[in-house]
Amino acid sequence: MRPATHIETLQPSYIREILSAASADGVISLAGGLPAAELFPCSLLEQAMTTVATQKNVFQYGETQGYAPLIAHLQSTYQLDERQSVLVTTGSQQGLDLIARAYINPGDGVVMEAPSYLGALQVFTVAQARIETVPQTEQGPDLAALAGVFATGNIKLFYAVPDFHNPTGVCWSLQTRLKVAELCDKYSVSLIEDAPYRELRFSGESLPLVSSFCSARAFVLRSFSKTSAPGLRLGVVTGPRDWLIPMVRIKQAADLHSSLPMQAVLLEILKHAEFADHLKNVQMHYQQRYHALVNGINKHIQSAVSFNTVEGGMFIWLELSKGNPEEIARKALAEGVAVVPGTAFYPGTNAASKALRLNFSHCSPEQLVVAIKRLNNII
Amino acid sequence: MRPATHIETLQPSYIREILSAASADGVISLAGGLPAAELFPCSLLEQAMTTVATQKNVFQYGETQGYAPLIAHLQSTYQLDERQSVLVTTGSQQGLDLIARAYINPGDGVVMEAPSYLGALQVFTVAQARIETVPQTEQGPDLAALAGVFATGNIKLFYAVPDFHNPTGVCWSLQTRLKVAELCDKYSVSLIEDAPYRELRFSGESLPLVSSFCSARAFVLRSFSKTSAPGLRLGVVTGPRDWLIPMVRIKQAADLHSSLPMQAVLLEILKHAEFADHLKNVQMHYQQRYHALVNGINKHIQSAVSFNTVEGGMFIWLELSKGNPEEIARKALAEGVAVVPGTAFYPGTNAASKALRLNFSHCSPEQLVVAIKRLNNII
Repeated sequence: MRPATHIETLQPSYIREILSAASADGVISLAGGLPAAELFPCSLLEQAMTTVATQKNVFQYGETQGYAPLIAHLQSTYQLDERQSVLVTTGSQQGLDLIARAYINPGDGVVMEAPSYLGALQVFTVAQARIETVPQTEQGPDLAALAGVFATGNIKLFYAVPDFHNPTGVCWSLQTRLKVAELCDKYSVSLIEDAPYRELRFSGESLPLVSSFCSARAFVLRSFSKTSAPGLRLGVVTGPRDWLIPMVRIKQAADLHSSLPMQAVLLEILKHAEFADHLKNVQMHYQQRYHALVNGINKHIQSAVSFNTVEGGMFIWLELSKGNPEEIARKALAEGVAVVPGTAFYPGTNAASKALRLNFSHCSPEQLVVAIKRLNNII
Repeated sequence: MRPATHIETLQPSYIREILSAASADGVISLAGGLPAAELFPCSLLEQAMTTVATQKNVFQYGETQGYAPLIAHLQSTYQLDERQSVLVTTGSQQGLDLIARAYINPGDGVVMEAPSYLGALQVFTVAQARIETVPQTEQGPDLAALAGVFATGNIKLFYAVPDFHNPTGVCWSLQTRLKVAELCDKYSVSLIEDAPYRELRFSGESLPLVSSFCSARAFVLRSFSKTSAPGLRLGVVTGPRDWLIPMVRIKQAADLHSSLPMQAVLLEILKHAEFADHLKNVQMHYQQRYHALVNGINKHIQSAVSFNTVEGGMFIWLELSKGNPEEIARKALAEGVAVVPGTAFYPGTNAASKALRLNFSHCSPEQLVVAIKRLNNII
């Protein structure tokens, strides 16, 4: 049977294509975006699973919007007023997909920073959006370019990852946050603020959500994959109450609701007295890993490279002075280290990036140093 | 922000609209399609949750296709040969949504029996399919009508619920199964065989899956909501291996994968020595409830009604000789019994049904009799 037309435009994912090679014995993978499994809150998960096992009501069908006690907890944690609401989703990936399905007609304009999160590119491609990109600076999106594309009057949504962007690790300055909110208001563009890495800050000061400056026209996507465990597949979308209604209707057709025992497990973890310490522990280890990676690059990479420093998240963006990043990634894999070429993070096929994305959350500091030594043999 | 155009064509669900009224104190609900919570395999669920709590690998990201040990178990249970494969989904509802997203272009022809499962109507509406219906007889779809619509040459998919249809409870005869498979082959129509109630047979002989007669052009959707617990949100799609590939790509954009701890819990339950006894227990209790409902109707309903006998599933279809079923359902709710008017199960708004759908899985035999007495006060 012939697939639907929009499938043909879906780019194959580089990361999925190299997945089996990257997970082969002896290969150190800096390619994926995996959290460190050894830092999962195992004891909290175990307690929560055991507690929830006897809560009979979570095994029946539930409300599409989510498990009411979890919604109440999040409404309070995020200090949402009554104009805002919460929708629990099967990972924040589903939150983004539901926004696209509920709001995008084929051809509608969506702006992203380039390079971009691949999962968002996939969602907007499936929705047949017209994807426009703006370049990224060290402070966030190029504001003149953003104003220019907004001013065409033809943009419905701006998708952004202001905290520790995937793939570049860039964290927007306060000034950029204020200006983007102002531009969204001025040009009536709705903001999708994707914040999966926000709680992975290990240095510097936390900055306000961009959406806090334009809450009447913004969705926030939050993930529990990086702070609890990704296997649970839970995220949430918050946003104006009436904006969530069409998404709830689509979600009813898409999967009725997300797993209730998992929502109850998540609530137990979030409410646990030890959760804050768990989060600090993850941040501390990611900081150590980041430093190991940076020191490894400074010490062992002999050719000219550059990278931005980061204060959190899971990635750095290593700019090469020469060479083809796809060829380098391929050769590095043969040398026992998996990385993703920057070209993989641009819509279309003619990206001119000379960068590599390096993940520092998944491997131990020792593995990261070995990986960098191997990488040096190639670049 | 203005929702996408296809949202406007989504019919509001009668069942969702009356949900709060139907779950009010004192109301007996025969409206939903809920399994009996008191028959859930609680001890198996508790054991499984406790076992899985310590399986660290299920808390990390996993494969989009599903948890490999569960896939291997199902591949063997369903005796799939190597041309067939399994995709684990967030409920079988998601399986249907993924088929639609991967294969339907706007305007593609999809055939359903009328009346129809509402969740399938929603999926095909969101996908902007051109929905054609064929009437249902006591043996299954009207074969002449089906051949007629297939012969237009303009049909891509036939969606069917051959075992204990929702809403009518009809179970297709063997002859109908053979003939439908033949028609699908003859007219190159792909079959979606939705089988959520197949394992809820409490009398008579199980008949082969329709897809067993045309496996090269058929998907089968299976639900664990009725045999294990719906809160888990797990179902599977089986079908030709290469037909599942575009669906896996869409699922990656939709939610990456379904909850892994839930998949591991399901596997523990399915492999447990007591699972077969649990299933027999559910079947026995549903049979008792069905008999209580039927005896209640025969004894207490004083006006002329008729209904088909069923050998399993969760519903009967009560045909009224007179009256407006929507008005009757509304009045019945005021009398303390929730039912769904047959008109809710037809696409469009001008359905001429005089029937009510009655669920017998959720309430106790005693409640069912009280519900029927209350219903008699109205019709």
